[in-house]
Amino acid sequence: MWMLCTMFFMGALPSPAEMSQGHISVVLLGATGDLAKKYLWQGLFQLYMDQVSSGHSFTFHGAALTALEPGQKMMFDVLKKLACPPDEAPDRCAVLKDQFLKLSQYHQLKTAENYTVLNREIEVLLRQEGLKEAGRIFYFSVPPFAYTEIARHINSSCRPPPGAWLRVVLEKPFGHDLESAQQLAAELTSFFREEEMYRVDHYLGKQAVAHILPFRDQNQEFLDPIWNRHHVERVEIVLKEVVDAKGRTSFYEQYGVIRDVLQNHLTEALMFLTMELPGNLSRTEEVLQCKLQALRSLRGLEKHSAVLGQYQAYASHVQEELKKGQDYVSTTPTFAGVLVQSDSLRWEGVPFLLTSGKALDERVGYVRVLFKNRAYCTQSETLRDAGHSQCKAKQIIFYIGHGALNTPAVLVSRNLFRPVMPKSSWREVVGQPELHVFGQPLSDYYVYSPVKERDAYSVLISNIYHGRKDFFITTENLLASWAFWTPLLNSISQQPPRLYPGGVENQNLLDFEMVSGELAFTAAEPVELLHPDRSMPSDFKTIQSKFRQSPLVSMWSEDLISQLASDVEKAANRAVAGSGQFHLALSGGSSPVALFQRLARHHYAFPWRHTHIWLVDERCVPLTDPESNFFSLHSHLLQSIRVPYFNVHPMPVHLNQRLCVEEDGGTELYAKEIAALVANSSFDLVLLGLGTDGHTASLFPDSEDGLEGTQAVVLTESPIKPHQRMSFSLSLINKARQVFVLVVGKGKHDITTQISRVGRQPRKWPISGVSPSSGQLVWYVDYEALLG
Amino acid sequence: MWMLCTMFFMGALPSPAEMSQGHISVVLLGATGDLAKKYLWQGLFQLYMDQVSSGHSFTFHGAALTALEPGQKMMFDVLKKLACPPDEAPDRCAVLKDQFLKLSQYHQLKTAENYTVLNREIEVLLRQEGLKEAGRIFYFSVPPFAYTEIARHINSSCRPPPGAWLRVVLEKPFGHDLESAQQLAAELTSFFREEEMYRVDHYLGKQAVAHILPFRDQNQEFLDPIWNRHHVERVEIVLKEVVDAKGRTSFYEQYGVIRDVLQNHLTEALMFLTMELPGNLSRTEEVLQCKLQALRSLRGLEKHSAVLGQYQAYASHVQEELKKGQDYVSTTPTFAGVLVQSDSLRWEGVPFLLTSGKALDERVGYVRVLFKNRAYCTQSETLRDAGHSQCKAKQIIFYIGHGALNTPAVLVSRNLFRPVMPKSSWREVVGQPELHVFGQPLSDYYVYSPVKERDAYSVLISNIYHGRKDFFITTENLLASWAFWTPLLNSISQQPPRLYPGGVENQNLLDFEMVSGELAFTAAEPVELLHPDRSMPSDFKTIQSKFRQSPLVSMWSEDLISQLASDVEKAANRAVAGSGQFHLALSGGSSPVALFQRLARHHYAFPWRHTHIWLVDERCVPLTDPESNFFSLHSHLLQSIRVPYFNVHPMPVHLNQRLCVEEDGGTELYAKEIAALVANSSFDLVLLGLGTDGHTASLFPDSEDGLEGTQAVVLTESPIKPHQRMSFSLSLINKARQVFVLVVGKGKHDITTQISRVGRQPRKWPISGVSPSSGQLVWYVDYEALLG
Repeated sequence: MWMLCTMFFMGALPSPAEMSQGHISVVLLGATGDLAKKYLWQGLFQLYMDQVSSGHSFTFHGAALTALEPGQKMMFDVLKKLACPPDEAPDRCAVLKDQFLKLSQYHQLKTAENYTVLNREIEVLLRQEGLKEAGRIFYFSVPPFAYTEIARHINSSCRPPPGAWLRVVLEKPFGHDLESAQQLAAELTSFFREEEMYRVDHYLGKQAVAHILPFRDQNQEFLDPIWNRHHVERVEIVLKEVVDAKGRTSFYEQYGVIRDVLQNHLTEALMFLTMELPGNLSRTEEVLQCKLQALRSLRGLEKHSAVLGQYQAYASHVQEELKKGQDYVSTTPTFAGVLVQSDSLRWEGVPFLLTSGKALDERVGYVRVLFKNRAYCTQSETLRDAGHSQCKAKQIIFYIGHGALNTPAVLVSRNLFRPVMPKSSWREVVGQPELHVFGQPLSDYYVYSPVKERDAYSVLISNIYHGRKDFFITTENLLASWAFWTPLLNSISQQPPRLYPGGVENQNLLDFEMVSGELAFTAAEPVELLHPDRSMPSDFKTIQSKFRQSPLVSMWSEDLISQLASDVEKAANRAVAGSGQFHLALSGGSSPVALFQRLARHHYAFPWRHTHIWLVDERCVPLTDPESNFFSLHSHLLQSIRVPYFNVHPMPVHLNQRLCVEEDGGTELYAKEIAALVANSSFDLVLLGLGTDGHTASLFPDSEDGLEGTQAVVLTESPIKPHQRMSFSLSLINKARQVFVLVVGKGKHDITTQISRVGRQPRKWPISGVSPSSGQLVWYVDYEALLG
Repeated sequence: MWMLCTMFFMGALPSPAEMSQGHISVVLLGATGDLAKKYLWQGLFQLYMDQVSSGHSFTFHGAALTALEPGQKMMFDVLKKLACPPDEAPDRCAVLKDQFLKLSQYHQLKTAENYTVLNREIEVLLRQEGLKEAGRIFYFSVPPFAYTEIARHINSSCRPPPGAWLRVVLEKPFGHDLESAQQLAAELTSFFREEEMYRVDHYLGKQAVAHILPFRDQNQEFLDPIWNRHHVERVEIVLKEVVDAKGRTSFYEQYGVIRDVLQNHLTEALMFLTMELPGNLSRTEEVLQCKLQALRSLRGLEKHSAVLGQYQAYASHVQEELKKGQDYVSTTPTFAGVLVQSDSLRWEGVPFLLTSGKALDERVGYVRVLFKNRAYCTQSETLRDAGHSQCKAKQIIFYIGHGALNTPAVLVSRNLFRPVMPKSSWREVVGQPELHVFGQPLSDYYVYSPVKERDAYSVLISNIYHGRKDFFITTENLLASWAFWTPLLNSISQQPPRLYPGGVENQNLLDFEMVSGELAFTAAEPVELLHPDRSMPSDFKTIQSKFRQSPLVSMWSEDLISQLASDVEKAANRAVAGSGQFHLALSGGSSPVALFQRLARHHYAFPWRHTHIWLVDERCVPLTDPESNFFSLHSHLLQSIRVPYFNVHPMPVHLNQRLCVEEDGGTELYAKEIAALVANSSFDLVLLGLGTDGHTASLFPDSEDGLEGTQAVVLTESPIKPHQRMSFSLSLINKARQVFVLVVGKGKHDITTQISRVGRQPRKWPISGVSPSSGQLVWYVDYEALLG
């Protein structure tokens, strides 16, 4: 074969008879840049070596903004240095390298005309050689601001003829939040079809990461019973770096560690772990669908889902490199630990800890699955046969590289199972028994490392060539990932990260802990590391005074919701201690959703078994309609807690297969149910909201329904759809022992200001009629609603 | 003081002026027995030394069946050997011992007259000395068969005069199951009032066990946030012995390890851990109530809650000592691991592993609370400051004694907190840093040991003297404990335990694991240890054939329920895979309860979110009435799983505040709901039962209601209360895709036999009309119903 290849390349291109698969042109944009120098040319050379006898012929076109001659020189200086891989016969490699150089050419690509010329050159060459065109690869190794223009040129003048494919390869960043990613995606989509775009996340080319799915597939027999929340204790996905951001702050200051590493690399690894296993791994579309599904099952992140750090010297690096003054304060995190949870049946409750940072004690990357310890060993430790003891930790580790092992690897605890590994690509490693990894000697694991260590880029370039889109990020996948990460990024954008000295001196300063679904550093922040002059919004004082003659609690909305949830729990415990029951009436609308979620996720000791849940108001739609208040209550609270079925009291808006028909007597029915169960129809706690028109519950201005008279439950008309409503009346509300009114958001500032000034005028502002006759009224108003 | 004491005891008894607190007579029954020799006399001597200047005077009466002279000699031989404790001044001790001997007297107690004489002697002595009687202690150190007679004699002739108290101290065993314990308790209660009885569990006198509650009380500040299911990973309560049962098989063969150790000692320790902390530890009644509450919150045990072992030589010990033949097979366990769970809000889901055995590798006792590891340590292990790393295990251990530490101790991981310990009784121990306990070097813990090591019996005797009933087992407590353990004891009585060689050779043979709420040994049983000729009921073959032309599954009831639950889950997964939903209709009655529990506790992967639950029949009572089928379904299944609220469909037997009134149209309403949600009203699975009169669902013989015609849901009359019912009709049932009929218990044998022979005669036997028109019918009939 190798004889053939040599002969074959006497001329630069083969004859049509020999190359029946057609010709592939590879265009590397940014051919003289860092990434190209370091990885991409080498990857292309590897592709050439691997595929030289595949039946395809190749030409390689380096391109940049630099003029022809200097560009050519710069590029060939790189090409001459291309290395021969250790597993390649040196003679063959030397010949192939020579041919690779002959097949490579430099182009200046700047103007529209440059692209037209390139296109023509490719056409002419192919015509001359009598070759059929198979496809063109355009590899964008350029800054993202240049994407759109290049894309436009390729689309308008460099598309291959019908029958041949186009593959454009894009490097991150792909936006820096959901909006910008959507915008960039929309632009690209106007030039390329989805199947033409290959977005690179080079982690998908890391051998240990790329093997997660095949490993799960090949070891299904062992993993099926244990790959779930009943057996997995936690998962750690970690990328630690020793280097800092020096020299890269112009990029880093805009992005930070979450955008740089967690949103992409670590999230991709997470997906491989959590996604349902597709029936057939070779069906790209199936793989991508399962992955997308997994991404969409992730539970939303909140501010306290993350701990953030910044190495101490970062500020001075930024000040120097970005010419900022001494008073410039950066809140860009260089370290983050994030607790991710999935709501899928398989993973509900399992903590996934994603961690990455710069200026740490070691360089290492790994994905570690730790199983629950469910064994009791009767024999005392010292007398145990340590070999396969079930009392040792059980773990599976996909070791990405560096660290103590200094090679990609797959580790499986010996007391779990001996994994099935493809012998052609992974070999078992024995030795270094004295080495300890993840709390155990290496000899406690089956250890496998790649037969041939391959650079991520050469893996990816090979996958581009093979059209394996499942190794790349689809638009849907990308946007789902940004949709997941953006709320966290927004909520922490002003949060000062903890400062850390860097390197081994960090000690336990960056250790963190899970506490009721949140993360927190375990050690207190040492005073000497604190910025003395930081003044952050979180330092605002809690305002606590009076509003309309009643107590007012005011904070930033997130803190307000926490406070409200605690106060609801306190009320519940008080009521249960007194009467054995807690009757809670909840309003619909969007503001309470955050409260529901808070109660579901953080208040494990809430006396739900003794709580009765009632609706303050309801829309006249079936309960299973997403517009129903009850449906929202169910999704955000009821399905996560254990309230007895009998204690849940949705409003009877749907009787006799019809909605809120007066003759069906739904209001009387609900009033009777209340009278039967709630002593004196006096609720322990009624939670209300406030509309921009001054409405509360479903009591609207300019109608007397429910505002006057003694009827407990009424039908009303809303000015907005769905118009028909059922609601508590003011008379019923005012019988309650406690009424909490929650008002959140800038949009409520005007009405908040207005009603702070008016007297009791329920026909104009129904909320002003809320005034419990012998109970307590408390206002929970966030800063935005209160102060605008 | 010590001078005073010496003078004081020049005569045998003090003068009335000096002893104003009154006189206490202690009667030790079985004064020459093993327990008395080994612990009780020493404990009484300790009591005397401690209380000599308390203001009470004492006399000690040893009693036994032996005649006066030989008995006297035997007893004084014991008394002469009483030891002086190391912390007592030898001179003082010698004097006190001399006095103790003078105050002690032997009595033969055999006949009623003997007791009358003893009583008279006490009265005469007190009158002579002019002493007021404070109380009498009778310590029963005799076999339980003698209890009743002795109790009768004490009650009729040895009660102290009004104003003085009586305390009778009883040693276990207190019965060997619930029934025998109830009987014994009833007998004792006819002679003594509850407050007069002191049932000893000497574990309550072990210093580490006795300190669990005070520790929880004194460290509330630290423990409050973590002493619950959110933080505790598991609890191990362990008593391992090296000795075997040789020489004690006549006792052991009747009791076994569960009755000997788990039902009492380990359960008591468990209660101290799990009970809610009473407001005031010195209020005995409050402590006892909290303990009882905790005992009653334990989840019922099943056969598979335990793993059982028997050391290999046990069989020959029994054969020799009990003169049994070679073919005698003992199933008495000498080793047991039991998984106990609590249904309290605090502990739900936390595994408590109770383990004890003879012929093990070491002698040790401990209570170990292991906390969840919720921390991530960013620094690599090798570079971590190990001192207080949050990534090390966090544990609290009450070390009862023996083992590596060879002293009672309390250990608290240093990364948890420094505990508050009473300095007068516990001192901090430093040293032995090289010693490893529970996976960590001793230096990782704060370690405390008693200032003065005290024998359990002297602690308990002191508590009897002080009337501290919370150190003893009340009748309620005892019966609750037996009520908890008896079902397990019954279900395993025929189960062959795993054989183990004994000692260190056991290796990992007795290691066990938790698997979905059950326990199982981790290692397979080695063949060479198996009895070749054991034939146990569990070896019966599963009968699987035909019944009334339909498939029949038959096994012992527990296995049958497991099989049925698995089959229901399979049907559910099939339906969800097909249509996205599973419509399951369940019957009321007692047989399905075991199925509900099985589904709730063992089928975590059941697709509940996609399951709709319907009722096959209902009693016309409110849903919250314990007689309601729905109520039973809710208690045993719904409250433990997560079925969306909308998917639960109780029968509308309670409309307009009245029950099953025809005009309310409940049957039509339910039929409409079914028609709206279940395609063709064809349920995926209908589960039925069978009544002894041949009824199924609520379709009864001798009435055509629901047996004929096409009405889907009907009102019917039951011959037994509550008479009114709502039920699926035969017509609706026979539309189902699958119908499972569950028949369990001896009581069903006759009807099972009868209907196996008859044709389709629904008016006589409604069950015979069940015959799905295009679905499948499967019979699940246990051996008892099938074979009688």
